[in-house]
Amino acid sequence: MNEDHATGQLFDTACFVGIGHIGSSLARALRKHGLAGRILCLEASDGARRVAMDLGVVDGAFADPAQAVAGADLVVLAVPVGAMEAVVRAIAPHLKPGAVVTDVGSVKMAVIRDVGPLLPDGVHYIPGHPIAGTEHSGPSSGFAELFEGRWQILTPLPGTDEAMLAKLCALWRRVGSMVELMEPAHHDRVLAITSHLPHLIAYTIVGTASDLADHLQQEVIKFSASGFRDFTRIAASDPIMWRDIFLNNREAVLEVIQRFTEDLTALQRAIRWGEGEVLESKFRETRAIRRAIIDAKQA
Amino acid sequence: MNEDHATGQLFDTACFVGIGHIGSSLARALRKHGLAGRILCLEASDGARRVAMDLGVVDGAFADPAQAVAGADLVVLAVPVGAMEAVVRAIAPHLKPGAVVTDVGSVKMAVIRDVGPLLPDGVHYIPGHPIAGTEHSGPSSGFAELFEGRWQILTPLPGTDEAMLAKLCALWRRVGSMVELMEPAHHDRVLAITSHLPHLIAYTIVGTASDLADHLQQEVIKFSASGFRDFTRIAASDPIMWRDIFLNNREAVLEVIQRFTEDLTALQRAIRWGEGEVLESKFRETRAIRRAIIDAKQA
Repeated sequence: MNEDHATGQLFDTACFVGIGHIGSSLARALRKHGLAGRILCLEASDGARRVAMDLGVVDGAFADPAQAVAGADLVVLAVPVGAMEAVVRAIAPHLKPGAVVTDVGSVKMAVIRDVGPLLPDGVHYIPGHPIAGTEHSGPSSGFAELFEGRWQILTPLPGTDEAMLAKLCALWRRVGSMVELMEPAHHDRVLAITSHLPHLIAYTIVGTASDLADHLQQEVIKFSASGFRDFTRIAASDPIMWRDIFLNNREAVLEVIQRFTEDLTALQRAIRWGEGEVLESKFRETRAIRRAIIDAKQA
Repeated sequence: MNEDHATGQLFDTACFVGIGHIGSSLARALRKHGLAGRILCLEASDGARRVAMDLGVVDGAFADPAQAVAGADLVVLAVPVGAMEAVVRAIAPHLKPGAVVTDVGSVKMAVIRDVGPLLPDGVHYIPGHPIAGTEHSGPSSGFAELFEGRWQILTPLPGTDEAMLAKLCALWRRVGSMVELMEPAHHDRVLAITSHLPHLIAYTIVGTASDLADHLQQEVIKFSASGFRDFTRIAASDPIMWRDIFLNNREAVLEVIQRFTEDLTALQRAIRWGEGEVLESKFRETRAIRRAIIDAKQA
């Protein structure tokens, strides 16, 4: 890391394209750590613009792309993956030469495919994904500490300007994150396992319960502390964001669903045939993973 | 509830058969609230007996059934479901006439089938299941507050002595629980959905990850905050306890696995064919369940 980046302001003007949970959290974190002189946002929702201004998350909130991004030397794309292409099409003509554009999309291959070709020469695009977030949505749900102790993955493309990459790494470190560089395709495969499959499974199991007859559904809610509630938290995540993730990381997600289904079928079979030793040995293995996560301070 | 049960000691001598996470938590809670004059345990493990004595969880810890239960007017069976029959066979000849025997098994039909016929006349058997617990095991992991604000399900059999049932209800209320009476078969069906399926799914997904190549497994641990870690907590639960639950609630569990698999297949198909509206509407439904759990104060 360049030592010049260890203190002081990193960017004159940061513009968040989308000021939801992640965008508003990063905006707050930039403010808290004094990393940008001015913080703006481009946001289609009147309500979200008003909340972001009222809470002092941004210094200016715009619905017009030119007004929002023209002066920005850092642009953070923080909209659902499926909306990236349209917002970049709108801002591209107004971007300042030399600006850094990054994104926080949970899928990297599809975003790079959609965004990369639209950006003008002289703008530095460095794709990223913060491994942080809660099940809440909207600008009021954000908080400056969201990224502390969490990983920020950056997937720089061949030919990326080293100085700009160092500056963006510095920004993430100074909001408390650890930075990891990764190939985009590898990112999508890892996240399919650690994030996309768990969310799909959680949505499924909560959906299975919501299809039950009313009286049974009431009991599921009442007795949810027995395991079910752990799934409902992540199944409360933003529907649009998650729809877009599944549509845009299809191959990797379908592959891990297949693995998961095979494994579930094996356990189902062990239950049917009363194979206690198969169940027990499988259940012992999984404890080791939990311990490793606790040791890695990610629990 | 009988008003006599609202304060003061309820039982002279309570004996816990098995002093693990749940047994030791309830023993601590009885002590804290002054509900039993003396607290004993019958426990096969030398180590667990020593820990329970050293921590002052019990006043006496025995490996011999007669010594442990002969004087007890409350006996709490707190061993894995598959071990219930053997421990009851050992204690039955030594039980005091008029004693209340209850259990904390997560499955009720199979425990009633195994335990009921072995108990002598004059002993009151009232099956139960506290909807509480953590992923930790053993006597040192227990704590007196475990049951506060949680549900205690009792599944009394036809002909149960009303006075004894009232006394046991009072015990659970005084350790902080809400008490629900239920038919055993209905209990097993509800818990298959709220608890057994979620645990099986968590074990499966964590198992799927633990089968990955080493370098990928390290990355799954590193980036687990993106969803995966929520599953690892419940997949760290006691392997023997869970083996026994699946073997002893087979029909209900197999039925809910079937429903779950159908629902997962429908989402998988929507991902494959790019049906965004199917995904989005499913993901919206599940948010309502989360809100209901928060409203029910079980989140």
